[in-house]
Amino acid sequence: MTVVQQAGSAATTEKVDDVVDLVGAGATSGGVAGADGAVVAGGADGAVVVGGADGAAVRRVRAAFERLDAVDRPEAWITFVDRADVLAAAAEVDARVAAGADLPLAGVVLAVKDNVDVAGLPTTAACPSYATSAAGRPGPAAVTAPAVQRLVDAGAVVLGKTNLDQFATGLVGTRSPFGAVRHATLPDRVSGGSSSGSAVAVALGIADVGIGTDTAGSGRVPAAFHGIVGIKTTVGLVPTAGVVPACRTYDVVTTFTRDLALGALATRLMVGPDAADPSGRTWPADVRLALRATPVVAVPRPEDLAPLSPGWRAAFDEAVAAVVATGARVRTVDVSAMLDAATLLYDGAIVAERYEAVGAFLDTDPVDADPTVAAIIRGGRDVPAHAYVADRARLDAARADALVALDGCDLLLLPTTTEHPTIAAVQADPVGLNRRLGTYTNFVNLLDLAAVAVPAGEADGGPFGVTVIARAFDDQLALDLAARLLTPVPTATSPTDTPPPAPAPSTSGAPPAPLLTAPLVVAPGVDVLVVGAHLRGQPLNGELEDLGARFVASVRTSDAYRLVALDTTPRKPGLVRVGPGHGAPIAGEVWRVAPGALGRLLAALPGPLNLGQVELEDGTWVVGFGCTAESGLAGADLTWAGGWVAALRAGA
Amino acid sequence: MTVVQQAGSAATTEKVDDVVDLVGAGATSGGVAGADGAVVAGGADGAVVVGGADGAAVRRVRAAFERLDAVDRPEAWITFVDRADVLAAAAEVDARVAAGADLPLAGVVLAVKDNVDVAGLPTTAACPSYATSAAGRPGPAAVTAPAVQRLVDAGAVVLGKTNLDQFATGLVGTRSPFGAVRHATLPDRVSGGSSSGSAVAVALGIADVGIGTDTAGSGRVPAAFHGIVGIKTTVGLVPTAGVVPACRTYDVVTTFTRDLALGALATRLMVGPDAADPSGRTWPADVRLALRATPVVAVPRPEDLAPLSPGWRAAFDEAVAAVVATGARVRTVDVSAMLDAATLLYDGAIVAERYEAVGAFLDTDPVDADPTVAAIIRGGRDVPAHAYVADRARLDAARADALVALDGCDLLLLPTTTEHPTIAAVQADPVGLNRRLGTYTNFVNLLDLAAVAVPAGEADGGPFGVTVIARAFDDQLALDLAARLLTPVPTATSPTDTPPPAPAPSTSGAPPAPLLTAPLVVAPGVDVLVVGAHLRGQPLNGELEDLGARFVASVRTSDAYRLVALDTTPRKPGLVRVGPGHGAPIAGEVWRVAPGALGRLLAALPGPLNLGQVELEDGTWVVGFGCTAESGLAGADLTWAGGWVAALRAGA
Repeated sequence: MTVVQQAGSAATTEKVDDVVDLVGAGATSGGVAGADGAVVAGGADGAVVVGGADGAAVRRVRAAFERLDAVDRPEAWITFVDRADVLAAAAEVDARVAAGADLPLAGVVLAVKDNVDVAGLPTTAACPSYATSAAGRPGPAAVTAPAVQRLVDAGAVVLGKTNLDQFATGLVGTRSPFGAVRHATLPDRVSGGSSSGSAVAVALGIADVGIGTDTAGSGRVPAAFHGIVGIKTTVGLVPTAGVVPACRTYDVVTTFTRDLALGALATRLMVGPDAADPSGRTWPADVRLALRATPVVAVPRPEDLAPLSPGWRAAFDEAVAAVVATGARVRTVDVSAMLDAATLLYDGAIVAERYEAVGAFLDTDPVDADPTVAAIIRGGRDVPAHAYVADRARLDAARADALVALDGCDLLLLPTTTEHPTIAAVQADPVGLNRRLGTYTNFVNLLDLAAVAVPAGEADGGPFGVTVIARAFDDQLALDLAARLLTPVPTATSPTDTPPPAPAPSTSGAPPAPLLTAPLVVAPGVDVLVVGAHLRGQPLNGELEDLGARFVASVRTSDAYRLVALDTTPRKPGLVRVGPGHGAPIAGEVWRVAPGALGRLLAALPGPLNLGQVELEDGTWVVGFGCTAESGLAGADLTWAGGWVAALRAGA
Repeated sequence: MTVVQQAGSAATTEKVDDVVDLVGAGATSGGVAGADGAVVAGGADGAVVVGGADGAAVRRVRAAFERLDAVDRPEAWITFVDRADVLAAAAEVDARVAAGADLPLAGVVLAVKDNVDVAGLPTTAACPSYATSAAGRPGPAAVTAPAVQRLVDAGAVVLGKTNLDQFATGLVGTRSPFGAVRHATLPDRVSGGSSSGSAVAVALGIADVGIGTDTAGSGRVPAAFHGIVGIKTTVGLVPTAGVVPACRTYDVVTTFTRDLALGALATRLMVGPDAADPSGRTWPADVRLALRATPVVAVPRPEDLAPLSPGWRAAFDEAVAAVVATGARVRTVDVSAMLDAATLLYDGAIVAERYEAVGAFLDTDPVDADPTVAAIIRGGRDVPAHAYVADRARLDAARADALVALDGCDLLLLPTTTEHPTIAAVQADPVGLNRRLGTYTNFVNLLDLAAVAVPAGEADGGPFGVTVIARAFDDQLALDLAARLLTPVPTATSPTDTPPPAPAPSTSGAPPAPLLTAPLVVAPGVDVLVVGAHLRGQPLNGELEDLGARFVASVRTSDAYRLVALDTTPRKPGLVRVGPGHGAPIAGEVWRVAPGALGRLLAALPGPLNLGQVELEDGTWVVGFGCTAESGLAGADLTWAGGWVAALRAGA
């Protein structure tokens, strides 16, 4: 593989404002719009290839090259894959799709932060000598990091490696010998970091998925500045093998996307154990798969928001109103203890993790070490282990306290960061401003929380963003609220049966978020058919919500079933299998639950109901509610109504 | 509460050999034999109080006092609860039992290691000045540690606090200003440590449950030396609040008992989250509740056993044969990498955890610090945090490697320790011998494994013991193999329907282990009735075993059910509810599974089977297998047979 390595580029302040025109116009739910408007990936159902002599992946890659050349933002990148190799990879994807392969990310263009290994490319972590020195990790990577490899296996194509705050230490994007990474559309301002280049590459429409890493907020702050989505899963779900650690205990590989659904899809593909990642974790057997219809969202007290710039403060109030407009209830919570935990990341002993990762290399005094980064990391050299152990104990206590504070709440909403500073302001106060930018992100990984950063309008002349924070493994709940926030609420005059209107075009330079109708589920589950009191709007639907069940589809059974009235409180129907053609299609809903939730549902299920395989109209079988023969034969027949709700409406 | 604190007592070598006569003769499964032979605790089903003017708890406590006075082993104890207070507590237990309270540990006498808080008593951790110095934890404990409080709430009575290797640092029992704790019956030998006094108190029949703590093997090595049971659960399951940490990340509160069932019961009561323990963990939703009938047990290679004394080496071979005799298959596994991880506990950076716990106190140069202990802990003072972080990463990798090595095995069997040294030998080489004693225990907590230490015959003139080691949260599997090892195998000539013979009396000085017929389950589950192919001996029973399901009981349904033959492969029956009196009692088995396992069972369940509430002969309802009305009405009736196995035997 030929490698083209960019020289460093000093930050300039030229304006780049042609973003909106080039991306996103054709974006649809779950899909990725290439710069030429072709939909090249169609979500979990496989790639949709539209027209042209070249395959869609090759066309998407060519468009990325054109975009790359047009925007002239060399400081966002550190290493490119040779264009011929990129085209060859894309052509191979097209060939596989043409041959029938199911490649959910066919032609998706990847930009990979340069602290994550891609086979054949050096991994500099924004310190070129790290990739050449014997004290660092000399030579190109032999193996692609599993998180990236899983995307490539799904049809994504790596375009190159992106710039970052050196050794992923910073939230600003200015701490790199490859140049301070300017914001995509407001180039006098910072891009945010440390995953600066990946965020800019996505915001500029060059890449579809930007791979970042996040320890203190590096996968979230740049998303907020660019009006894009940043997904930071629970620590341990995505393998960190092949990543230069920042703090190995707290690092997470993340995605930036313009589209939440694509981010969720990429996340789902990246999650899972890998033999090379001994600290990995897996979804618990009772993981919650959906946010309830009317969740309780914790929001901070006004005094917790004091660090915000006035513009960001006002925008956050609007975001809270937007949360309420989604149907959520909002509860004010004292988050000061969580925010205080943030200080342990840099001011406490945890910084020793950074020294453990690259300290021995920095002790060789490499000329290309960023002075701010080197000073921070060297600060971890002489921390005693007993102080680190004590800080870990403080973090355990802080995590428990955070869970108590969030008791009764499904999620926490915070501003992603405090303000959007200029590059000049950061250079004048590189540590103080960086610290302030981490006010609402630093504590999240430390306290074992998941987070999704989403755009939420504008503030101070640029994008504004909020982060939805969830308990460990409640990643899906955060994604669900993010999806609701990104889906405009129908106005009061809209007929409820029509789809909500398309979102208003953003004026911030970021592409508009596509309409999200079916956000993706990141953890596996079991499909369960309900036909009675567990249907939406019926008295026991809350049991499903409490179990984290996820609505999948409205369906009908095959014509092998009868529906009968049972003698229960609340009133319920029973589904009785009587054989093909001997019944009628009965309306129901498929919900997805984790195995542990299904077991709890069954354990609490009162007679005469039962659960077993039920045949749907399309010939598939799912676990579904039935009832005993005794009760099924005794109950009044409701089959004529075709379903429980219809029977109730008809006065049954 | 009046406190009587013992002065330190130098070790002597007088013989104490009257143990067997005083305890255990009346012990039965799940119960605790007091010194007077009365059964004072009846397991999960509640206390059984037998005769006498005093209640059983008071009688048990009086017997403990008599035993305590008779054996004259002051060095095993640090602080006693005033006897009047102990009697008052026992009388209150008796009164509560008389009033109908369900106290599963009514009258069980507790000895608590003196690094675990009991309200009103000082916690010295075997360093008296620690309980008086401002740099330590001056004054009596305000709150009893939750692990102990839960036993007290269940009817146990605390007799006093026991001696230990100072600050729980050691496996020998000699490192204490209160005196080297002599072995219960071989007083020239060490008791083992660090939970020395609690083990001796149990072995001598003074206490029924000895509370220990275990970081490197302190809850296991003394059990091996005394022929008693030591249960060390997965880290985090039992709260460690109120415990002076040794290494806070790896400490576990443990039990010593003469009886595995009592140990399992106490463990079950101790497990569970506590608000004061922010690092606690809970059972996963798919926890396995039982060891399969024919498990695969990993055993070490001969070279891994080189550290054993010749006598212990021979005894271990016999233990492996005993495992095979339980029906297990044995697989030789290279455990050298696991054993190597042990060196990280004392030779690596993890020792900084010990400094974090009590280093600031030891830096005041207390006169009563044990010199060996103080030297070890001070060795953790200057360890850099980055070295600790690196060692934690090594442990993550070692844990993953251990799981790979154990792949395909349910459990690992190891000798608990290497030999049983004299006190003189330990005093001659306090560090080297201690290190050798930890060969097979040190790595267990570090690699996140659970362990149960059980007696396994004799070696070198004293008890010999093995440890059953399980993956994290597979505690029940280790308990199950331990139970099988402690239950004598029926001889080939025994009729299989008669109970196995009682175990031969031990000659080691430890009381004989009682017959274990129903070892206790430590994690909660859901009861499921099976009536066909999932019954024991039937083709699908392995599905239950793979899910970690636990056989509970053979039962019959109420007479509301018919059994019919279904048209399936393998052949299965269906249970159809037809109403009270319209069917017949049908034979089945109740199995207990975790909710996640139940959900998986249901998700994989083929039609026409289903799962719902089924009524048993005793009027209770459990989740059970049924079938659809369609199939139930079509199948040939088997109700006449009263069950699937009987129907098959009759040629159905």
